[in-house]
Amino acid sequence: MSSNSTRRLNINNINPHVREAKYAVRGELAVKSEEYRIKLARGDDDLPFKHVVSANIGNPQQLDQKPITFFRQVLSLVENPLLLEHEDVLLKHLDYKSDVIERAKWLLSKVGSVGAYSASNGAPGIRQSVADFLERRDGFPANWADVYMSIGASSGVSTLLHVIVEGPQTGILVPIPQYPLYTASLSVLNGTCVPYYLDESKNWGTDLSAIKSAYADGKAKGIDVRCIVVINPGNPTGATLSEEDVRGVIEFAREENLVIIADEVYQANVFAGEFISFKKVLRTLQQEQPGRYDHLELASLHSISKGMVGECGHRGGFFEMVGFDPEVQAEFYKFVSITLCAPVIGQCLVELMVNPPKPGDPSYPLYKQEYDAIYNGLKERAYALWRAFSRMEGVECGEPQGSMYLFPTIKLPQGAIDAAKEQGKTPDELYSLKLLEATGVCVVPGNGFGQKEGTLHFRTTFLAPGTEWVETIVKFHEDFLNQYR
Amino acid sequence: MSSNSTRRLNINNINPHVREAKYAVRGELAVKSEEYRIKLARGDDDLPFKHVVSANIGNPQQLDQKPITFFRQVLSLVENPLLLEHEDVLLKHLDYKSDVIERAKWLLSKVGSVGAYSASNGAPGIRQSVADFLERRDGFPANWADVYMSIGASSGVSTLLHVIVEGPQTGILVPIPQYPLYTASLSVLNGTCVPYYLDESKNWGTDLSAIKSAYADGKAKGIDVRCIVVINPGNPTGATLSEEDVRGVIEFAREENLVIIADEVYQANVFAGEFISFKKVLRTLQQEQPGRYDHLELASLHSISKGMVGECGHRGGFFEMVGFDPEVQAEFYKFVSITLCAPVIGQCLVELMVNPPKPGDPSYPLYKQEYDAIYNGLKERAYALWRAFSRMEGVECGEPQGSMYLFPTIKLPQGAIDAAKEQGKTPDELYSLKLLEATGVCVVPGNGFGQKEGTLHFRTTFLAPGTEWVETIVKFHEDFLNQYR
Repeated sequence: MSSNSTRRLNINNINPHVREAKYAVRGELAVKSEEYRIKLARGDDDLPFKHVVSANIGNPQQLDQKPITFFRQVLSLVENPLLLEHEDVLLKHLDYKSDVIERAKWLLSKVGSVGAYSASNGAPGIRQSVADFLERRDGFPANWADVYMSIGASSGVSTLLHVIVEGPQTGILVPIPQYPLYTASLSVLNGTCVPYYLDESKNWGTDLSAIKSAYADGKAKGIDVRCIVVINPGNPTGATLSEEDVRGVIEFAREENLVIIADEVYQANVFAGEFISFKKVLRTLQQEQPGRYDHLELASLHSISKGMVGECGHRGGFFEMVGFDPEVQAEFYKFVSITLCAPVIGQCLVELMVNPPKPGDPSYPLYKQEYDAIYNGLKERAYALWRAFSRMEGVECGEPQGSMYLFPTIKLPQGAIDAAKEQGKTPDELYSLKLLEATGVCVVPGNGFGQKEGTLHFRTTFLAPGTEWVETIVKFHEDFLNQYR
Repeated sequence: MSSNSTRRLNINNINPHVREAKYAVRGELAVKSEEYRIKLARGDDDLPFKHVVSANIGNPQQLDQKPITFFRQVLSLVENPLLLEHEDVLLKHLDYKSDVIERAKWLLSKVGSVGAYSASNGAPGIRQSVADFLERRDGFPANWADVYMSIGASSGVSTLLHVIVEGPQTGILVPIPQYPLYTASLSVLNGTCVPYYLDESKNWGTDLSAIKSAYADGKAKGIDVRCIVVINPGNPTGATLSEEDVRGVIEFAREENLVIIADEVYQANVFAGEFISFKKVLRTLQQEQPGRYDHLELASLHSISKGMVGECGHRGGFFEMVGFDPEVQAEFYKFVSITLCAPVIGQCLVELMVNPPKPGDPSYPLYKQEYDAIYNGLKERAYALWRAFSRMEGVECGEPQGSMYLFPTIKLPQGAIDAAKEQGKTPDELYSLKLLEATGVCVVPGNGFGQKEGTLHFRTTFLAPGTEWVETIVKFHEDFLNQYR
């Protein structure tokens, strides 16, 4: 029979760049954990655990985290503005405060209906509020026209890389370990990832000499290295950069004329040290040495998915563009216009995140209480997990600094390394798979983020409540070592 | 000074495929119309009109269309589940019905929190509800695992093309005129658009001979033509395909082994004839002639942005994949997982669209009344506009059939054609620009969608209320002809 009796598409003739992309955070283990979850929900009792703990992804509200009441009250009103015809009922019977009602009215005045498309890069009124926040945060002016609303930070990263990557010769400096969005997006775009290693011995800080040698290696291979990605606070590492570290990166970017992408989505998740934005340091440098940094291009990203907001399902975020050529910026605009606009309700939630209730506002006491409880809960869980790791043989982990993750090093016996090889897996993949099978705890093997040759890690969130699941990891680890010792 | 004192990115060294993409629906005229809107809001009175009418984009709720109450009531509860602790207040004081409360609880049981990521291709419970809808609509089974939730239909199209386009040699048959999402996405992906012309003389139906000759031309150029896009009902044309037309396309796709992308987002916007889905016709053919169509791959798209829902700002949609190789489908899954998931509140709204109140449900009477009023309003406006066009010299337009658009042919005097050339514009661009400047009505020139050489058109939505704006078009047209005659 002729060729038209088989399907047109097969794994060998689709887009090779999509085929080659890897995205372990939602890969094989995540799929398997969902199968377990379905089995357990069906009442199957042949698994050695009763719950699946999805520690593979920063998804706070899937676990224990409750949404912040003020945010959701406002969203309920912008979703159903007819409720605003019953202010007395809202105030008297439903625990809504007057500032909830005012904010909902204000947002509706800016977007019309949340069911209408906004401008391609977001509703101007909301972008103005974001600019005001950036100004308060950094102490330097921000222009709403340079703020682009996105569908979570992921779509922002995709937009930035889409415009920046000219072709296969374009190189982007990406930290290793990294959130695999960067390598996956570069793979799809057929750009070149130029990895630079973070310094585990310095609690995963940036190591300027590593950046410089990665850059030099890339250049020597004929790669047009034109951009550096920095994730601060780090994912998966949690590291929070000092001002000195940030200055170092900016100075290097100036010397080599690199665009900076600053992924700052964990800016509120800081336990040790202080978050300092790239924008603030750049503006400070520009003030200190007029003219020297004027040509620098910086795009920095933020999101409602993380922090104490944790509203990943709403898919909201933004990026600010500093110093870009207006003609280039127009291309960013055109690119985002092809996908029309970010979800307007997510844009509203961005506005609420950057402009929460202030002391004296009727909703402030509850907001503050909820916010602090989430922050303290995360910190406590991070430390509980960290202490558990410190009891585990061959496991090393720096003190929690920020983000939602710990990324311990694991040293595994040769038996485990050999067994993994036989099964066509890396040792950290085998370890994470066995952990899932034994305990229902789903983590991501270190190779999903990249790690130095010969080192092994896994990433786990510290979002899940309770300590029971932590103890099952400790127990599993001991059994695993004994099995392969 | 060294090269590092200028910006790294300029219009000539960014991604050339992004630079080359065109997207007129949100292009120069749309930007200009927003500037006018801001001027008017400021109170400036030096413009010859008092309002901007955005007839360039199908954005119902930006104009007159009110959201459907049932949908928004449910969404307010899933946004703020604390309201469910006050059922009596909802029922007695806020006009909520019991089915609103039940649905909100059911949705929350399926997604947990709308602030949590769902599975990458959408919450299983919602996808099951979509599959049930497809089964009711077509009379053939649908599998929830083949339903992928998307961020409006646009992201669905982007996902499909991302996997299907292997390289620059990959050709996709795209109708002309078309919604420019297809050409823009293909440009960004560096795939090849193989245009086939719709038949204006047959009210913009598919013309199989035009498809065949476009395909043959593409093949002769060495292009690997592997997919055909059909927009039904048509955008910008509104044409609704007969079952015979759909059969013809499927038979051709079978012969030439083409993947079919059926963009069916206007399936509820049909005034003349009846919408028949590609899936239904494919399954019917498979039943009639077992074996003959088994290998066919069909992806069909739907959205909450259009129809009587009109919730574009919520960015919800889905596509169903029929007949794809499981290995290929896994690549679609991986690709969507890189962007994590579609907004969960938008997924909830998709569920509400496909499973609205039924006769006998407490919310049904109001739902029915609102739905019918929107449908009838759109139809009336379509006809009012169409009648106005019939009074305009040199304008021809088929009777309204569906979608949200009319796409009249315009014949312009040589003077206008010459004037446009002098200004570096096409005649339809000049016409649309002058229309905007004179009346505040923003339409899209036909060349934004593609049109046969030597023909001129513009696309206008018929969403705006009232008849005043229609009369300003009639008046402008007369003046324009007189000016250039």
